[in-house]
Amino acid sequence: MCRYLAYLGPPVTISELVYKPPNGLVHQASAAMRSLTRINADGFGVGWYAPEISPEPAVFKDTSPVWNNYNLGSIAGKIRSPAIVAHVRAANSYDPVHRENCHPFARGRLLWMHNGDIPGRARLTRQVAQTADDTLLAMIRGNTDTEMALTLFLTHLSDPLAGDLDVDELAAAMRQTLAECVTLHRQAQEERPLELNFCVTDGRALVATRFALPGEASPTLHWRETGPHRDGRSVLVASEPLSDAAGWEEAAPAAMLLVRADRSVESRSLADLA
Amino acid sequence: MCRYLAYLGPPVTISELVYKPPNGLVHQASAAMRSLTRINADGFGVGWYAPEISPEPAVFKDTSPVWNNYNLGSIAGKIRSPAIVAHVRAANSYDPVHRENCHPFARGRLLWMHNGDIPGRARLTRQVAQTADDTLLAMIRGNTDTEMALTLFLTHLSDPLAGDLDVDELAAAMRQTLAECVTLHRQAQEERPLELNFCVTDGRALVATRFALPGEASPTLHWRETGPHRDGRSVLVASEPLSDAAGWEEAAPAAMLLVRADRSVESRSLADLA
Amino acid sequence: MCRYLAYLGPPVTISELVYKPPNGLVHQASAAMRSLTRINADGFGVGWYAPEISPEPAVFKDTSPVWNNYNLGSIAGKIRSPAIVAHVRAANSYDPVHRENCHPFARGRLLWMHNGDIPGRARLTRQVAQTADDTLLAMIRGNTDTEMALTLFLTHLSDPLAGDLDVDELAAAMRQTLAECVTLHRQAQEERPLELNFCVTDGRALVATRFALPGEASPTLHWRETGPHRDGRSVLVASEPLSDAAGWEEAAPAAMLLVRADRSVESRSLADLA
Amino acid sequence: MCRYLAYLGPPVTISELVYKPPNGLVHQASAAMRSLTRINADGFGVGWYAPEISPEPAVFKDTSPVWNNYNLGSIAGKIRSPAIVAHVRAANSYDPVHRENCHPFARGRLLWMHNGDIPGRARLTRQVAQTADDTLLAMIRGNTDTEMALTLFLTHLSDPLAGDLDVDELAAAMRQTLAECVTLHRQAQEERPLELNFCVTDGRALVATRFALPGEASPTLHWRETGPHRDGRSVLVASEPLSDAAGWEEAAPAAMLLVRADRSVESRSLADLA
Repeated sequence: MCRYLAYLGPPVTISELVYKPPNGLVHQASAAMRSLTRINADGFGVGWYAPEISPEPAVFKDTSPVWNNYNLGSIAGKIRSPAIVAHVRAANSYDPVHRENCHPFARGRLLWMHNGDIPGRARLTRQVAQTADDTLLAMIRGNTDTEMALTLFLTHLSDPLAGDLDVDELAAAMRQTLAECVTLHRQAQEERPLELNFCVTDGRALVATRFALPGEASPTLHWRETGPHRDGRSVLVASEPLSDAAGWEEAAPAAMLLVRADRSVESRSLADLA
Repeated sequence: MCRYLAYLGPPVTISELVYKPPNGLVHQASAAMRSLTRINADGFGVGWYAPEISPEPAVFKDTSPVWNNYNLGSIAGKIRSPAIVAHVRAANSYDPVHRENCHPFARGRLLWMHNGDIPGRARLTRQVAQTADDTLLAMIRGNTDTEMALTLFLTHLSDPLAGDLDVDELAAAMRQTLAECVTLHRQAQEERPLELNFCVTDGRALVATRFALPGEASPTLHWRETGPHRDGRSVLVASEPLSDAAGWEEAAPAAMLLVRADRSVESRSLADLA
Repeated sequence: MCRYLAYLGPPVTISELVYKPPNGLVHQASAAMRSLTRINADGFGVGWYAPEISPEPAVFKDTSPVWNNYNLGSIAGKIRSPAIVAHVRAANSYDPVHRENCHPFARGRLLWMHNGDIPGRARLTRQVAQTADDTLLAMIRGNTDTEMALTLFLTHLSDPLAGDLDVDELAAAMRQTLAECVTLHRQAQEERPLELNFCVTDGRALVATRFALPGEASPTLHWRETGPHRDGRSVLVASEPLSDAAGWEEAAPAAMLLVRADRSVESRSLADLA
Repeated sequence: MCRYLAYLGPPVTISELVYKPPNGLVHQASAAMRSLTRINADGFGVGWYAPEISPEPAVFKDTSPVWNNYNLGSIAGKIRSPAIVAHVRAANSYDPVHRENCHPFARGRLLWMHNGDIPGRARLTRQVAQTADDTLLAMIRGNTDTEMALTLFLTHLSDPLAGDLDVDELAAAMRQTLAECVTLHRQAQEERPLELNFCVTDGRALVATRFALPGEASPTLHWRETGPHRDGRSVLVASEPLSDAAGWEEAAPAAMLLVRADRSVESRSLADLA
């Protein structure tokens, strides 16, 4: 299990998401409140966009518990961005803790995170080896289910490493990825739960999912919108609310959230995949 | 490029191989003498056997340059073993530097190291995904050509994770692995050099190779035998001699060295694969 | 807060102390049972003696949570020693997490650990700078209260870096160190608690303390003796029992435990210092 | 020995200083051209200012060779700043390689770097313990000569952790620090060279020194000014030129460079200290 968040809106510092909220990611690393795994101390990562410089994101991730990382502590308050993601990891017993297995994962303009588990690593690896092209295969730098799922996702995009991805295309590829994981899971008559809380963003829009087989295994997912005006509106998607503030919504157990570039939020059902 | 060594003989400390020789691995990390890549500072690893406790090896590897690793500096002089391997790494530009990509790689009773390069990662990954069984696939923890080649090697053993491996079976599997790599290389009409200086040991015997396509690309490989008596005889195989001492032999450019449990050394030609 | 253990007895593997017991240090790292700080994930360390090779100890320590350290996981079962210490750290907010601030600390033949806190770092640093000689001062590699206290301790030994230290001399120096810390604390009218659970060993004997001002702040300390015969007798000192096994004793709140080379245990009161 | 650079001018990305120049810091890490120590692979650091957010700098430093650090590789091109410093370290044999010993060192609004060596650590530690107040003493996080010298420097500022430091005050404190180091060195009749190439900045102005005893031991120091107009003018100070471009000047062997907020450069002699 892990915990993640993703923010789109007027520029804020990374600190305002990770350190300052009462239940910010630093708190969730040692005492997650809505997760069976309370300790998420097997590494962390942040990713952000500086659209005035590049459409590709910056990623800083490391293997330490987020609470004792001095680099993040120093830079988080000095970087302001309109699009930030962050993740704290609780590794399962078979995926090693090294930077390349930490989230988010970057490909082209995209950042990808996962909260959950896809049992059956060999099965997943074979699927990836069969369906991904040479370029995507050679970009794999770790061995997690998350990175394998990302690679599957990219195979469902028309031009995965190019720019100007449409949010509806992201959503369609996400749905196909979940369907593919479900098919693999069922074909293998896998008994362990399949947990697929993914999040992908290109810095302007994002798609996040809450999905598991069986459904009751699904990790939590919440979101919060602020601001009435388009320019000032922000959306924050997070595994669990960062505070007791009003306005936090809980995603349905089998649902996909789409946040468009205008920061409108749409929830689509994934119940047909369950 | 990288540099490695492997020792079989009466117990010695790790220090006697890594720190004390004038051209020990610590020296080779910053100033390798017989390698185009003089700096091998992208991590290191040592592996050793404590046969009185377990047939499986201990592995300590880390991403720092070996010269500034205080843990190795402290423990190397306090561990004595009859079977020790060590490696310093110069990563290519596409394989990340994390512990799980450092050498040696452990599987069951075996330790595996590589000095060289297998171009065409996607090709290699697909071959592994097609030929390895679920158990071997799920053991992959990094993304290097070396670990992929190890997985291919294991598919050529009758019972790869069991004990009591025969050195002739190791040698046969090694030859098959090289042949498989050569076939993949040629089928793809790959133009970059294929460099396959591998080393595998179970703590009693070892097999090491010197092989490349084209042949002149082959990294160096040397060995040295000491002691007239079976009990006191030792064999040291290394990418380059550790000192100016007499007795260092150079392996032929397309050859496989077999060191048996009685520490006799046999060189077999691999010229037919070239 | 932290948790530590120290073992003297017939050789055992590090695994038998760190991984195997139900409440071994790996368990205490994420769920310490007798400590206000349940998570001790800011690094760890092990130290051990190989008396057949050297009177000086080996130390392996790292900044990761002990539970996800693959190096320790690999080597702990392959190293057997008659004298082992181990420590998991919960750093306070002002001492950085880097290897040189992890415990145990090594000087000459000695290993030193601490569970507690000495408030007033500047005060302590000045005391050390005034009383330690050049050699001891130059050996300081981190900035913790623990290493400063170790340096004070060494100033109370007649020949701190030499061999053949007498356990009674260690105990006398320990008492002087505690007295020195108490004096500094009182002179400054420091209001924060002073917590001084130290442990020092030369691989043959050890001295451990349980002491705090005010007394009720003292961290826990326990020990367990096994075996009726001198050769087979072992003593294990630990911040908290490693299991529900019979035989665990709790140290008095202001006490010093002496374990001699024959593994007899003596408890001396430190109540006069309180 | 080490290599450093400091930039003041119109905002540029960190990449433009570290990665892009032919002799950028990444190149100097493995093949410094004007240093006896060609390999500077014992950690690195970057510091930068985001004046629109905070007067205090951000610092990212790590122990890996700069050339294989993926975090820096990812973020360096996405951060643009008008004030950037960077450093690659070649540790001496007695200062451990951990993040807190890497440069730059931050205090309040200041960043501090050093290229050189101050022999006699115990002597320096005592001087610091005697002259620094509790606040400054408690801020020491590592054990290097560099951080001790920084602490001495801060004692010569009227209000070291406050804002709005005047460049002339920085220059005066720098001169006093050098004089203090020279006095300590001479009083001890130290025979090893004293090398004091420091650099301090508050993000608007900077002071850098080239100084050694004996004079011929002084590490190199260069600078380059560009742009005729005040708004577009930049100054780059570096241990060695980053390229063959015209305009690089070499600092005199005993000199202090002052770069003011208007990016005018003044060289003052330190010959009277020699």
